[in-house]
Amino acid sequence: MLLSTSCDFEFEIVVPTPFILMLRPRSGAQQWIRSEEYKLSPSVPVLEFTDSYGNLCQRLMAPPGPFSVHTSAEVMTMDAIDRAPGAAFIEVQELPDNVLIYLLPSRYCESERFGNMATEITTGKLLGYDQVAAIEDWLRRTISYVPGSSDVPISATEVNAKQSGVCRDLAHFGIALCRSLSIPARMVVGYCYGLEPMDMHAWFEAFVGGRWYTFDATQSVDSEPKAAYVAIGFGRDAADVAVYNQFGPAVYPISQKVAVRRLEEDTGPL
Amino acid sequence: MLLSTSCDFEFEIVVPTPFILMLRPRSGAQQWIRSEEYKLSPSVPVLEFTDSYGNLCQRLMAPPGPFSVHTSAEVMTMDAIDRAPGAAFIEVQELPDNVLIYLLPSRYCESERFGNMATEITTGKLLGYDQVAAIEDWLRRTISYVPGSSDVPISATEVNAKQSGVCRDLAHFGIALCRSLSIPARMVVGYCYGLEPMDMHAWFEAFVGGRWYTFDATQSVDSEPKAAYVAIGFGRDAADVAVYNQFGPAVYPISQKVAVRRLEEDTGPL
Amino acid sequence: MLLSTSCDFEFEIVVPTPFILMLRPRSGAQQWIRSEEYKLSPSVPVLEFTDSYGNLCQRLMAPPGPFSVHTSAEVMTMDAIDRAPGAAFIEVQELPDNVLIYLLPSRYCESERFGNMATEITTGKLLGYDQVAAIEDWLRRTISYVPGSSDVPISATEVNAKQSGVCRDLAHFGIALCRSLSIPARMVVGYCYGLEPMDMHAWFEAFVGGRWYTFDATQSVDSEPKAAYVAIGFGRDAADVAVYNQFGPAVYPISQKVAVRRLEEDTGPL
Amino acid sequence: MLLSTSCDFEFEIVVPTPFILMLRPRSGAQQWIRSEEYKLSPSVPVLEFTDSYGNLCQRLMAPPGPFSVHTSAEVMTMDAIDRAPGAAFIEVQELPDNVLIYLLPSRYCESERFGNMATEITTGKLLGYDQVAAIEDWLRRTISYVPGSSDVPISATEVNAKQSGVCRDLAHFGIALCRSLSIPARMVVGYCYGLEPMDMHAWFEAFVGGRWYTFDATQSVDSEPKAAYVAIGFGRDAADVAVYNQFGPAVYPISQKVAVRRLEEDTGPL
Repeated sequence: MLLSTSCDFEFEIVVPTPFILMLRPRSGAQQWIRSEEYKLSPSVPVLEFTDSYGNLCQRLMAPPGPFSVHTSAEVMTMDAIDRAPGAAFIEVQELPDNVLIYLLPSRYCESERFGNMATEITTGKLLGYDQVAAIEDWLRRTISYVPGSSDVPISATEVNAKQSGVCRDLAHFGIALCRSLSIPARMVVGYCYGLEPMDMHAWFEAFVGGRWYTFDATQSVDSEPKAAYVAIGFGRDAADVAVYNQFGPAVYPISQKVAVRRLEEDTGPL
Repeated sequence: MLLSTSCDFEFEIVVPTPFILMLRPRSGAQQWIRSEEYKLSPSVPVLEFTDSYGNLCQRLMAPPGPFSVHTSAEVMTMDAIDRAPGAAFIEVQELPDNVLIYLLPSRYCESERFGNMATEITTGKLLGYDQVAAIEDWLRRTISYVPGSSDVPISATEVNAKQSGVCRDLAHFGIALCRSLSIPARMVVGYCYGLEPMDMHAWFEAFVGGRWYTFDATQSVDSEPKAAYVAIGFGRDAADVAVYNQFGPAVYPISQKVAVRRLEEDTGPL
Repeated sequence: MLLSTSCDFEFEIVVPTPFILMLRPRSGAQQWIRSEEYKLSPSVPVLEFTDSYGNLCQRLMAPPGPFSVHTSAEVMTMDAIDRAPGAAFIEVQELPDNVLIYLLPSRYCESERFGNMATEITTGKLLGYDQVAAIEDWLRRTISYVPGSSDVPISATEVNAKQSGVCRDLAHFGIALCRSLSIPARMVVGYCYGLEPMDMHAWFEAFVGGRWYTFDATQSVDSEPKAAYVAIGFGRDAADVAVYNQFGPAVYPISQKVAVRRLEEDTGPL
Repeated sequence: MLLSTSCDFEFEIVVPTPFILMLRPRSGAQQWIRSEEYKLSPSVPVLEFTDSYGNLCQRLMAPPGPFSVHTSAEVMTMDAIDRAPGAAFIEVQELPDNVLIYLLPSRYCESERFGNMATEITTGKLLGYDQVAAIEDWLRRTISYVPGSSDVPISATEVNAKQSGVCRDLAHFGIALCRSLSIPARMVVGYCYGLEPMDMHAWFEAFVGGRWYTFDATQSVDSEPKAAYVAIGFGRDAADVAVYNQFGPAVYPISQKVAVRRLEEDTGPL
């Protein structure tokens, strides 16, 4: 599937403000960035670096006055996310080194507290993919998905107390549950085709059967196409994958627009 | 100063248990490992890897039965930790790329919540080193240091509520306060000469004036020698720098011994 | 300066052929990629990874039949390359760790053989930038720059024997001479505005005064604008920065077009 | 097998001289460093870093006068090197990203020149391990192994012209032949038990069947134990894995001693 994505931010800056943006998607196994735009107005010097998770991050100093960020991309992505019922749990000692960090608790995923709950949710399931699918399904049935209901990230413990949340919250809870079963899990932010209302999205991935698989408790299993994801950033949780981090006195976007369209052009399979 | 350090763990393993140990100190700007032992009994295959913070980690599968880990080292370390009153705050846009991760909130350091408190604690201080020194001093005066008072890591928010803690807790609080002022801060675990009671120790470092400086609110500023630290691991907080992580059914050491001695041999300055 | 760059390859593939392309420029201190296209025809799955020099590389399997690669970009680059007469030689022990690899001899830069020649060329010069400028100047006066005169990379020793070469050859020779003086030097491939005839270009950078500076013995010092470079890849020499590596039976492009235009739009300084 | 290794260098330094040493073996899949010593006399500050191949490197400034380096280790290593006749050739597009660099030509391995020779040597062999074994065997039969016959590294082309060489030379030739067949190959330096005369040793590894396998054309296939290797450094060729690099006016060791002993203690399998 060929998608066109865009994200536009407008800020009104008062004092020179350092930003770290994470708005340039990378080509990878699941997506190919065939074109891309990244424009800043006014134009300012930018340093780009690769963080420890492999994300491209853009550092800049926003000058006082109106400041806008425009990014867009044409991305070839998969027609449906991979599912793999039965894919095996990977024993910790067999995991690749760089996956181990996703077993540890993190800011918004207090995985050390959810061992019993996760065990109960997954009772009777095959170890591995089926456990994660059971967690995803449990979240879908149990935690109300209320888009726009919160601005500030909250942690799995808080989501559990609240029993509802935005996409990010459900992802945090899913990640915490997986990790408590020694299944590596990580947060993804990016675009999702067909999302309503349209916005940046967050979901999670779990490492089973030797690779990362996508899970998203906010989407119906029957929705079609259940697929069209474009990842921008990967990390342990929302603390790692903010589409922007800003330092100094708080600055909020006065406008933020996200769009995802399907392009008609037939490009064949990714 | 030349130190001899050792750490011994004994476990009684019931089912084969994956471990990730972080017990091999690395030579660096502040310390030189001139000899080292690392012995496992029974001997098992070990894979060693470097994590994303640069720590050496040892992966192994502990077999059922008694399992012991012995590490020791002779380390040349500094005679006194560096102090640098006046060392400048580094603007975010000037920080090295690999330091940026230490600005973000993490599992036990909810830095996004402590902006006001940190501002108040550091009122009137020069930006940079002096702010961190004020935080260290405030912690020393305010939070009771009670070695052995907790086993499980707690977060800065919880330490603030409790107003007391172990070395790890004070470090978490200090880190959260620094990061809320856009000062990169990280956790260090390792050995500290003269600690009473002797145990593994935790402290923190802040990045000011272009490098990392050591801070430790558990030690009196007047104690002599205020120095002799041997770092084993660096990370965002205790979640990253456990001297061991163990997976599967919980296993606790039936014995743990830490020793730090000063060697008489005159080796001159590091 | 705002440049539009493009590169088009057409191949006629006989058997399925693995390719590793290096055709996606990265934003960095000297350039900002504000838009970019990367299209393959037919469309095939691509894996992108970051190599040990920080370059983005695209892995794919080209299927039998016609296969074309189109990349283009709009890049904001500097109006003039930085010059820094007097910038100091950095003692080896003061060099950043990740620069050290650029002191070692490499496939096409047998730096261990050029110590005497480099010393003679730079006699009387200040250590550092001025030595490299003297090397660049010596190459410009001594080695005939003959675009299109060779297809296969040759080494500094061979360039020295031949006394002429393409841009890549002059860069190899310059790199070898710098390294023999313990000055880190690396190869850059990319686009150069105003190049005649237009083609992919190669130049070199030397690390003096604490950063990398651009040198290019193929361009007159008086040419205007002496600047407009867009880097695609960095490495020790041509072995590391091929815009494509192809494995299996040799395949040659049946067509290769490179274009660099200046865009009129006034974008202000980078 | 439990080995004791040691390496001692003595230098007479005239002017302050930067060194980069690579003398600290790392624990890995094939070896476990259970104790280690690293002593410098006089003691000087040392910075240790991890290079892009994963080797630990020690940077220091040797002061004028006598300067000695002592390293020793007790290492548990395998009783016999793994052999895997039939292990498959891995298609380039299936290789791990970080292995790809070992397909490229390098300073002493001009692999782009040996395609025909390698094809001929391996005629009729299964692709993969058996090709490398054929290359190893061909080297053993064809190129005279003459320990101590050269001090300066020479390249595969030069070894081919000379038809004899030291361990390093045979390794370079083997690596170049493998790479010309799109088989990743890398150089290893370290210790070899039973070597005569005892010295630092060099051999090579090829990546087939999904992992690195050891090859050494200097050793008889029948020698017993054909095993006991302790690796210190990995790289593309000798340019990457010098046990020391020294900068400025050349300094040669006035004494160099290498020892490898077998320890009696029964430690069981690695």
